[in-house]
Amino acid sequence: MTKIVIIGGVAGGASAAARARRVSETAEIIMLERGEFVSFANCGLPYHISGEIESRDALLLQTPESFKSRFNVDVRVFNEVIAIDRQAKRLNIRNHITHEIYQESYDKLLLSPGASPIKPPISGINNQFVHSLRNIPDMDRVLANLVLHKPKHATVVGGGFIGLEMVEALRHRGLEVSLLELADQVMGPVDIEMANILHQKLVDNKVDLRLKTGLTAVNECQIQLAEADITDDYDKPVPPHSHLQLTLSDNSTLATDLVILAIGVKPETSLASECGLVLGPLGGIRVDAGMRTSDADIYAVGDAIETADFVSGNPSLVPLAGPANRQGRLAADNMLGGDRLYRATQGTAICKLFDMAIASTGLNEKSLLRQAIPFEKIYVHTASHASYYPGAHPITLKLLFCPDNGRILGAQAAGIDGVDKRIDVLAVAQRAGMTVYDLADLELTYAPPFGSARDVVNQAGMVAANVLLGDEVTCHTQDLQALTATQIIVDVRNPGELTAVGAIDNAINIPLPQLRDRLNELPKDKELLLLCQVGLRGHVACRMLVQHGFKARNLSGGYKTYQMVNARF
Amino acid sequence: MTKIVIIGGVAGGASAAARARRVSETAEIIMLERGEFVSFANCGLPYHISGEIESRDALLLQTPESFKSRFNVDVRVFNEVIAIDRQAKRLNIRNHITHEIYQESYDKLLLSPGASPIKPPISGINNQFVHSLRNIPDMDRVLANLVLHKPKHATVVGGGFIGLEMVEALRHRGLEVSLLELADQVMGPVDIEMANILHQKLVDNKVDLRLKTGLTAVNECQIQLAEADITDDYDKPVPPHSHLQLTLSDNSTLATDLVILAIGVKPETSLASECGLVLGPLGGIRVDAGMRTSDADIYAVGDAIETADFVSGNPSLVPLAGPANRQGRLAADNMLGGDRLYRATQGTAICKLFDMAIASTGLNEKSLLRQAIPFEKIYVHTASHASYYPGAHPITLKLLFCPDNGRILGAQAAGIDGVDKRIDVLAVAQRAGMTVYDLADLELTYAPPFGSARDVVNQAGMVAANVLLGDEVTCHTQDLQALTATQIIVDVRNPGELTAVGAIDNAINIPLPQLRDRLNELPKDKELLLLCQVGLRGHVACRMLVQHGFKARNLSGGYKTYQMVNARF
Repeated sequence: MTKIVIIGGVAGGASAAARARRVSETAEIIMLERGEFVSFANCGLPYHISGEIESRDALLLQTPESFKSRFNVDVRVFNEVIAIDRQAKRLNIRNHITHEIYQESYDKLLLSPGASPIKPPISGINNQFVHSLRNIPDMDRVLANLVLHKPKHATVVGGGFIGLEMVEALRHRGLEVSLLELADQVMGPVDIEMANILHQKLVDNKVDLRLKTGLTAVNECQIQLAEADITDDYDKPVPPHSHLQLTLSDNSTLATDLVILAIGVKPETSLASECGLVLGPLGGIRVDAGMRTSDADIYAVGDAIETADFVSGNPSLVPLAGPANRQGRLAADNMLGGDRLYRATQGTAICKLFDMAIASTGLNEKSLLRQAIPFEKIYVHTASHASYYPGAHPITLKLLFCPDNGRILGAQAAGIDGVDKRIDVLAVAQRAGMTVYDLADLELTYAPPFGSARDVVNQAGMVAANVLLGDEVTCHTQDLQALTATQIIVDVRNPGELTAVGAIDNAINIPLPQLRDRLNELPKDKELLLLCQVGLRGHVACRMLVQHGFKARNLSGGYKTYQMVNARF
Repeated sequence: MTKIVIIGGVAGGASAAARARRVSETAEIIMLERGEFVSFANCGLPYHISGEIESRDALLLQTPESFKSRFNVDVRVFNEVIAIDRQAKRLNIRNHITHEIYQESYDKLLLSPGASPIKPPISGINNQFVHSLRNIPDMDRVLANLVLHKPKHATVVGGGFIGLEMVEALRHRGLEVSLLELADQVMGPVDIEMANILHQKLVDNKVDLRLKTGLTAVNECQIQLAEADITDDYDKPVPPHSHLQLTLSDNSTLATDLVILAIGVKPETSLASECGLVLGPLGGIRVDAGMRTSDADIYAVGDAIETADFVSGNPSLVPLAGPANRQGRLAADNMLGGDRLYRATQGTAICKLFDMAIASTGLNEKSLLRQAIPFEKIYVHTASHASYYPGAHPITLKLLFCPDNGRILGAQAAGIDGVDKRIDVLAVAQRAGMTVYDLADLELTYAPPFGSARDVVNQAGMVAANVLLGDEVTCHTQDLQALTATQIIVDVRNPGELTAVGAIDNAINIPLPQLRDRLNELPKDKELLLLCQVGLRGHVACRMLVQHGFKARNLSGGYKTYQMVNARF
């Protein structure tokens, strides 16, 4: 009879406990959770704060009682492991209700401690109006603050998933919101030109977006009541004031009522490191593909560990629910004698922001550059379904691929409709080792309400294949902006589009329908950088010109991508 | 300079023309279309009839003029090829405007004639109130009928894609609708228990659904004006009457005003067979993987050809827009010296029906049985996204897979939200040669508005993997209905669910939370067929019981699938 002890009762830990019982009816399974709740929906917290998820109970997926009755798992909430004795295979545990400290032995131990919100050492940060959001008590505190103090203005620090979701939640509740982000973009998993779509969406939704701006100090305002307020006229409204005065990295100040810290998370590794388990280069617990730590009887899963990146094979920290669940299930199998292997993490992720979504899988351009991995990139902007059927919205898709063999390195998409589907399709294709040629041939569901006979992903595959086969030489915005004396820019859109949408100053305009008859206006000794609105007509023009003996390249994604790259926030 | 002539100007032909020009600026490209329109959105026709697509012009994607100016393609509408002289490589063409017959030579010929609606030899079928729907003039005639004759009741014959879309379109316009289907189910690409979801949806939307019922005669009613009507009182309403009296295969009659024939299509092969091109066993034009017919200078694409089925390799007729577009592109490359190969057809397809969608890819159970291909099957019913976030709806997914290696043979899904995404994911996985084990490990986008940490597809993969690994022995509805003396049925749902949802008469009810304590109530010498609502608790129970020495199998998809199988319409 194997005795399994699991530290941490959320995603990875809870999955492991349930799976372990299904694998072995005889195993003794103890799940220790230092907090009050197990298996709660932490991804749902911002949506209960916004009010979209009405019932708090809806977030509590399992209880200690349901775990006991269904899975015969001994769940102990408010029980915190304070030390691991690996030699004796024994834990020291503090019961936070009885304050008792007791011991528990294990045959196999699973660490699923998660990650904790980063709280930088900023003056004044320990303030009742400054919140993190990681668990149910955090959420309760934010909600209590909203109800009790009726803040008018909130400041979200950090533009990652939780930061953006909280911006939306607070706007949804009618607060004015400032968003501070130290980097030059929100949503680190995507590249800046894609993030610029989010920046525009934030501005459109009246969010005070401040990029390259950090928080350096928090001061609580003493509420100075004016003499007129010190009366017995209780109905008289208190004049507006802010609870906090923030100092920002540009030395400006910002009056606000509430701060949400969403700078990021760091793996919870204190227990692991104190008992001498090996950590990885990024500070997470090191595990092998079987989820074993450096101690063969201790496994670890979830936000606390490092896994291999699917593309590069390098260690990565990926604090996402999906991988944590799968790792928990796999660790349970292996603790009970299995030999299953985890197959790297792509980091597939999505974030809703107001009416749009942004999603990505694999590596982005920043990481590819940083790791010196060779890549090509293309952009397409295509309707989410047949454009003649109501409700179609453009999807902007960026595809990164290997110049040698066409393997998919990464993909990013943004839009109002169908973004999740396209990144899911690309995540599967990437995991299967497909190439951009395969993408062109994918057979996806098509009827006018759902897609197009040539879907966004098919089209991205075709464009990328054209690049690899040399059927099209592409150029990018930076090429247009570093124009040499031997290059000219040719815009093949119709003059009306240039007026309506915008144009590039030094471009010659010859609309595509006239191009074949006006070839004599173009020089053969210069390289023509072609552009249209989204890249399709530019491709047609490019093919035409090259065959007529011109040197030509097409701006990938057209003027629409050019605008994304050049947007400034 | 290659001279390419293309017969047919819609999906496959239009794609080929555009691609050919991009490949070769010097090729002479002529596209002959016997009708008035090229490159129109035939998938959009029902939605213009319904009124959802307001503008008829939205369906006209390209014109002869736009093809000429953009692609330098000589498009000749109203020009019908009446004979192909393969030896002389010359076409006889009738110009339907001038009535002139002329000749045109070709170096490479592409046949993209499409398919024509099947019109069975039924008495009275050539009637002004009986319509097919294949092209713009068909649509115009239906709309004219609706406007002029203000029909109250319509009868759709055939429950395939177009039939179902027309049922919805006509209901959307407020007509009463009868749907006649000769088979025992609508939507042939899915199996009957999945089609039963559609049958219910039709009934819920007040469609008079008549399965196993064909049309045998059409009689136009002579409007007998009552004497009272023959007056000079022009404002007096004409009493209600029906334009048509239909005779059905069960000898009943049906009064209706309008008939839409949507029985199916047959490949247009008259030109091909008259000039001696080889046809395939299903009556389509035979082509190799390079889209070449039995004449090396003649290619064919689209609804008129047979392609290899992805799973079985057998010839198949798949009249879908996506494959036609890709084949057209590929044929253009090959006509201009390329050597690209078409990689079989999965038949991925989707149909909207009122607020729901049904989709499939690969082979269904019927075809697997017919072709004696061994398979296993499982069902899951899972929320389209995190169930605690508003707007989640259950997706019913049926997965068919190879019992030996776990390869995906086919998948079908139905639901209100996210059906297209799941079948797309499975279509990519199938094409990539993935197994059900791979499905369990897929990393898909997850945030509460879009999915679940363990997505529908992940869960289907896990359930299927459990079956293959022997972690769960499943049973199906037919096993419960053919119960032997050595089997008993155990329902592990809560008593309240049985009352609310329904129960199986001869089942013992032991709720899962009590099961571990009530094992002594169950016999070890019998096989226990377990069920719950959707199959999850049944799995937990099954694992528990097997480990305690019982023989147990779990009903895949639970009582919900049982109800689907047993529904009668």
